[in-house]
Amino acid sequence: MTAPDLATLRAAFAGRLLTDAGDMAPFLTDWRGRYTGRALAVAQPDSTADVAAVVRWCVAQGVAVVPQGGNSGLSGGATPDASGNAVVLSLARLNRVRAVDPVGNTLTVEAGCILANVQAAAEAVDRLFPLSLAAEATCTIGGNLSTNAGGTAVLRYGNARALCLGLEVVTADGEIWDGLRTLRKDNTGYALRELFIGAEGTLGIITAAVLKLFPRPRGRAVGWAAVDSPAAALDLLAHAQAGLGDTLTAFELVSDVALELVIEHFPGSRAPLGGTSPWHVLIEVSSLESAAAAQAALEAALTKALVSDATLAASEAQATALWALRENISEAQARAGKNVKHDIAVPIAALPAFITAASRDLHAAFPGIRLVVFGHMGDGNLHFNVSPPVGADHDAFLRNQDAINRIVHDLVAGFDGSISAEHGLGVLRRDEAARYKSPVELALMRRVKTALDPAGLMNPGKVIQ
Amino acid sequence: MTAPDLATLRAAFAGRLLTDAGDMAPFLTDWRGRYTGRALAVAQPDSTADVAAVVRWCVAQGVAVVPQGGNSGLSGGATPDASGNAVVLSLARLNRVRAVDPVGNTLTVEAGCILANVQAAAEAVDRLFPLSLAAEATCTIGGNLSTNAGGTAVLRYGNARALCLGLEVVTADGEIWDGLRTLRKDNTGYALRELFIGAEGTLGIITAAVLKLFPRPRGRAVGWAAVDSPAAALDLLAHAQAGLGDTLTAFELVSDVALELVIEHFPGSRAPLGGTSPWHVLIEVSSLESAAAAQAALEAALTKALVSDATLAASEAQATALWALRENISEAQARAGKNVKHDIAVPIAALPAFITAASRDLHAAFPGIRLVVFGHMGDGNLHFNVSPPVGADHDAFLRNQDAINRIVHDLVAGFDGSISAEHGLGVLRRDEAARYKSPVELALMRRVKTALDPAGLMNPGKVIQ
Repeated sequence: MTAPDLATLRAAFAGRLLTDAGDMAPFLTDWRGRYTGRALAVAQPDSTADVAAVVRWCVAQGVAVVPQGGNSGLSGGATPDASGNAVVLSLARLNRVRAVDPVGNTLTVEAGCILANVQAAAEAVDRLFPLSLAAEATCTIGGNLSTNAGGTAVLRYGNARALCLGLEVVTADGEIWDGLRTLRKDNTGYALRELFIGAEGTLGIITAAVLKLFPRPRGRAVGWAAVDSPAAALDLLAHAQAGLGDTLTAFELVSDVALELVIEHFPGSRAPLGGTSPWHVLIEVSSLESAAAAQAALEAALTKALVSDATLAASEAQATALWALRENISEAQARAGKNVKHDIAVPIAALPAFITAASRDLHAAFPGIRLVVFGHMGDGNLHFNVSPPVGADHDAFLRNQDAINRIVHDLVAGFDGSISAEHGLGVLRRDEAARYKSPVELALMRRVKTALDPAGLMNPGKVIQ
Repeated sequence: MTAPDLATLRAAFAGRLLTDAGDMAPFLTDWRGRYTGRALAVAQPDSTADVAAVVRWCVAQGVAVVPQGGNSGLSGGATPDASGNAVVLSLARLNRVRAVDPVGNTLTVEAGCILANVQAAAEAVDRLFPLSLAAEATCTIGGNLSTNAGGTAVLRYGNARALCLGLEVVTADGEIWDGLRTLRKDNTGYALRELFIGAEGTLGIITAAVLKLFPRPRGRAVGWAAVDSPAAALDLLAHAQAGLGDTLTAFELVSDVALELVIEHFPGSRAPLGGTSPWHVLIEVSSLESAAAAQAALEAALTKALVSDATLAASEAQATALWALRENISEAQARAGKNVKHDIAVPIAALPAFITAASRDLHAAFPGIRLVVFGHMGDGNLHFNVSPPVGADHDAFLRNQDAINRIVHDLVAGFDGSISAEHGLGVLRRDEAARYKSPVELALMRRVKTALDPAGLMNPGKVIQ
């Protein structure tokens, strides 16, 4: 086989092509620095037609295509492998807002639109696009959809999947599927849209999407409550859901270790409540009327739930400060050194039992570890992260990663949970997922992969081997 | 090829097998009486393992499998073809509620559970399962999921697809895929669940599902407003959504012809408002608190929207009476004689223009026709039905069906709409859908079909040819 001729790729599409090692470097390593690969080139098309042209060239040459958005994924899904026989296809220059319809409440955007810009485009027509997550200033909507991103608003608005009405996709043949429907209802065939969402670019490349917009809340209330246990937090959740319904927009659990870590590493931050407590809950209520209405509803819910130790933000500034305690946990962990992360989900009712069992087994196997547990309790989704004992060597501790994963993921599987609730599989969790899936499910997934990507050139090695 | 030996089918599973022509008859004709087919037998397994055994027998014998739930579909999706080389697989005896979890808000039911029983199982734990449609006393949840059913609560809760967390499916090989996850978040691979939902049994047979439950509203308010035009109705919708958010649970449009038809054919029913109006809107608001709260919210919204001619139900009995005016339209049409039905969706903002254009073109082509237009305006979904002129021969009129479909569906396609918003394709709309879909989309659908049903035995001839 002769080496691919990049001049023909340059000619095949009208866009930008990076081939210099220095230019390509930022595209070849994931942002956590866990994965570094090689590539023939980085293609930066700025139109769907050019994405298709790049794919057709890759198909003709037998070269793999690795689509990449903001390169902010946590599972290595956008990094090429070490073979070097790949073109990284950056969607970053496909960043136009194509249409906005405040009557039908839809927004049509290209895949490379940065999430924060999508949110802003919605706000410009007095609507809400609710997807919100830590990387929103850099991640792209194409990546969000390809990984079916979660974030802080899933409890009320659902995952990225639930926020999408239509897609435009470049198929593995380099054809363009125009599925950019703006309809709320369309039962005319197989759920192709759903298939491409969450497939991490292994079945085709999302180039544009129609997103759902929502009425923009006029105000919010944010509260912070101390609870004795995950079971008590669960009780509070049940009360909040029954009383607040869909005005309840967030219900986040934070362990004492996680809170202390933020306070230690973010000067100026402080615990919202006096005294100590093993667990904390951040609750957010939104109102279409006003912040005052949200405040009243949250106060009523906390009173009804007999929560004794809680505080309500008295201003937007205080609300932001409470949220910062939650949102800065990941960064505080990073500042504290290396750790072993998990992004798991179990049935909501099983959360307390899971936390108890996982904590017990991990402490028994690795005395002195610190469990940085936090996450979207309302979704049954926890970031169950394991930091080394104080003073321990972090790199040495990380060599226990597989053993730690096994304890956590075996328990997750025992509770019929998920080992990747919102981060996707990429390469990080690909084999781990295959370990727990049934042969029937793996066979179905392989059939789908082979059907839509018969040459196996679409982001190979990701999701399924 | 030798004829299949039904004794081996009887032996292959422990369930019931109907082979007598009289016993089979009710399973061989759809409830509207539009399609009648033939079958070797009707199998009535009562367990998933037995469903799998039936499928394996069919695969071994090269016999088609036609899954059937409540046989209440509107597109002929559950009726075997005329070849006679099929087993109708009735899911009706798989009707157990397997689990209910009021903490995680999930309900696990078998495919043959009647929708009304699913609703009742939710209510028994003080929760709401919101899917609601005219056939709910006979249709099954397996059929609802296989056709991605819509109904009256889509505006607030979404289609059947949005209400499902997990599935159990018997594959085309007769294997059992256990995808009965109760998780709100799980990003560990391709969206197999989504693929089987809405596939009308052409990719596999849904045997059980995990459904989402919601807090049960404590009360509702129902209002009826007269509006001058679809555009005015759309204005009212925008006001209602902005002010009521997710407490707005229904927004239904009713044309004067539709209302008059109900009043004519349902003795005792009467127009809610004095005077005449070309268009009417039924609005429902739900409250987690009380009917009084819902009433106050709806009143405020109508006042804010400057609606002059409206009435609010003063009691649950009155609310039911208003809903009856909407729900009895289909039956009133049936009593009035034959008509040509459409189940279309267009972008919500395009509804007025679509109604204007379709009315104009139909009246021009078929003078004297009556347009029975009604439906889920909040979802952009209308039942745009065409009745013959007063006194015309209904059977003769029905011979115009293709020409009428062409006018309506060409306009729908021109507005980037859907020719089957909530009824599915079955055989009724299969070729019509293929007419409007792109070659790329049809090719993708065929690849999926071939991948999951290589022998082509799963409900052949439905959805895609």
